[in-house]
Amino acid sequence: MPKPLKTDVVDTSSSKSKHGTSILPNEKKDANYSRASFDLSANKGLLKRIEKINQTIIQYLEIDKGQPIVLYEAAHHLIRRGGKRIRSLLTLLACEAVNGDIDNALKAALAAELVQTASLINDDIIDDDCYRRGVETVHHKFGIDIAILASNLLVAQAVRLTAEIGLPELLIKMSNGGISMCEGETQDIIMRVENQRTFNEDAYFRMVAKKTVAFMRQAVLIGGLIGDASTSQLQALTAYAEALGYTFQLRDDILDITATSEQAQKTTQSDLRMKRGNLAVIHALNASQEIEKRRSFRALEAGDIIPLLELIEKTNALYYTFDLAKSFNEKAKSVLQGRGFATEKLLEQLADYALYRNY
Amino acid sequence: MPKPLKTDVVDTSSSKSKHGTSILPNEKKDANYSRASFDLSANKGLLKRIEKINQTIIQYLEIDKGQPIVLYEAAHHLIRRGGKRIRSLLTLLACEAVNGDIDNALKAALAAELVQTASLINDDIIDDDCYRRGVETVHHKFGIDIAILASNLLVAQAVRLTAEIGLPELLIKMSNGGISMCEGETQDIIMRVENQRTFNEDAYFRMVAKKTVAFMRQAVLIGGLIGDASTSQLQALTAYAEALGYTFQLRDDILDITATSEQAQKTTQSDLRMKRGNLAVIHALNASQEIEKRRSFRALEAGDIIPLLELIEKTNALYYTFDLAKSFNEKAKSVLQGRGFATEKLLEQLADYALYRNY
Repeated sequence: MPKPLKTDVVDTSSSKSKHGTSILPNEKKDANYSRASFDLSANKGLLKRIEKINQTIIQYLEIDKGQPIVLYEAAHHLIRRGGKRIRSLLTLLACEAVNGDIDNALKAALAAELVQTASLINDDIIDDDCYRRGVETVHHKFGIDIAILASNLLVAQAVRLTAEIGLPELLIKMSNGGISMCEGETQDIIMRVENQRTFNEDAYFRMVAKKTVAFMRQAVLIGGLIGDASTSQLQALTAYAEALGYTFQLRDDILDITATSEQAQKTTQSDLRMKRGNLAVIHALNASQEIEKRRSFRALEAGDIIPLLELIEKTNALYYTFDLAKSFNEKAKSVLQGRGFATEKLLEQLADYALYRNY
Repeated sequence: MPKPLKTDVVDTSSSKSKHGTSILPNEKKDANYSRASFDLSANKGLLKRIEKINQTIIQYLEIDKGQPIVLYEAAHHLIRRGGKRIRSLLTLLACEAVNGDIDNALKAALAAELVQTASLINDDIIDDDCYRRGVETVHHKFGIDIAILASNLLVAQAVRLTAEIGLPELLIKMSNGGISMCEGETQDIIMRVENQRTFNEDAYFRMVAKKTVAFMRQAVLIGGLIGDASTSQLQALTAYAEALGYTFQLRDDILDITATSEQAQKTTQSDLRMKRGNLAVIHALNASQEIEKRRSFRALEAGDIIPLLELIEKTNALYYTFDLAKSFNEKAKSVLQGRGFATEKLLEQLADYALYRNY
């Protein structure tokens, strides 16, 4: 696979390894990095749908609440702060692609966001991250007990909403997505510190298939089923969602290393501390000498991420990761072609967003 | 309400307040306590159904498993150890009551047990209990991260199983039960230490209605709906389940105080440490002088539960709690009468088990 132009990814020429995490440039400040910037707010088609999803979410949060209030405050804490709404966009765009009923798709999209929020609450507990979407994480603000219950509440609400659509098949897809996510998350946990040292790409992709991709796949399947899509339409939509999922996760891996917490509005560089599987880290380790790897592990144990960042730079691991992401982005766009999907253009733009986003 | 005979509850005459928790007698060792013993293993009708449920569970655990194995080991850890299977019995008996399809009822019963196991895993994390069903709790054995994911996995599996039955209404009931449970659990947490001091029975019953009763209600509703029960049959079954739920919780409150950990196969006397709302504790505090309450709180803060146990004894709080439980048990049995339910006798016996069980 050809390497992308340097301007496509990050300009590492300005790296200063002696200055903490600034070894990797702040993308926003890099004038040559314009290609890598996809401004969602300039895309009217996607933006209109995100706004519709956000309206649906806000309306729901106002109506469907109960006692004790603290449980609902905890459950609503992150979802109110916005988010990329990728999974709900997928459900909506897949349904629209085959001219399906928008109201039911919005209901399913809302359910997808509730489940997504539940999984973020859990992720933050598992990683003990304290910062997400510009605010304290739920377990930090409300305590771990309320956070667990808030996460369960969101799942129960999502199940109810989906059941109300009246197609049991949707819940089979949704729960399959949930099962895969749990399996992928567990795989991810297993891959921590000790294991990542001998970790390979195959295991990484197996983990991502479950952790990230399965849920995106279920999101388009649910949208497609609501729209009564044909089997071949569902196949194309799921192939698209899978390729999008890998693009999205690989971009996430890059951003975890390059983005500041401020940009990402969450704790970043946690992958570097070996909390999670990250393809750039895996590539950097696999492409380095044993002595260099050992040196970076020793430094990590002392809380110093610089030697690992240096390996990432030296092995062009970010370019390597971007290349892979780009090939998935291209695949996502190609599988849509010639299907006559009403939302083909928007789905393509979403694939570009997954690749070029800055947070 | 008349007090039950002393032999109906516990003989506190042998209490030795100077010897730690032995202030309250070990029920099993008390010869006068036979009335309070309901041996489930001697009840052929209920036992046959529990065995059928257990078979269904074991078969499912063998078939529906994936990777990583540790996730499934954690998810199966408690459910393999048995359990009272009350919720699944309720689903099965409600379906049989109206001569419904047993296979689908067993599937729903299995789903109820999976959800129940998920909630136990969460409860143990929230209380940080380390012992349940004679083994380590899931988060103690597998870590909190795997425990959270195992709990989520069980919920997703339960949703899938229920969706496979093909009645979306079942999932609406199930998720309503889940939402209530989250609300009730939160209420319970709010009631801890500080709040329990000024806590009253009304608030306790509101909490139990959500934490315990709602799920039992949903269990019979699901069984009834599978059996295509009429509206009036569903009303009778839910009235039964609600009364059973209160009986069950009040008995739990008594057992938390009187049973040894060995008998209960879980951490007991955690209510006494104000971890959870407990009607006997609430009554003891409400019926005591301010000076005595303060003394017991001071002792609790130093880890000493004896003064509170003395208040429970002095105020006859266990008898008071048993009286209430008995009145719910009687209500449960009365609402069943004259409906021609095929399983009326078994449902009555289950109500007696809820009241007289020793663990």
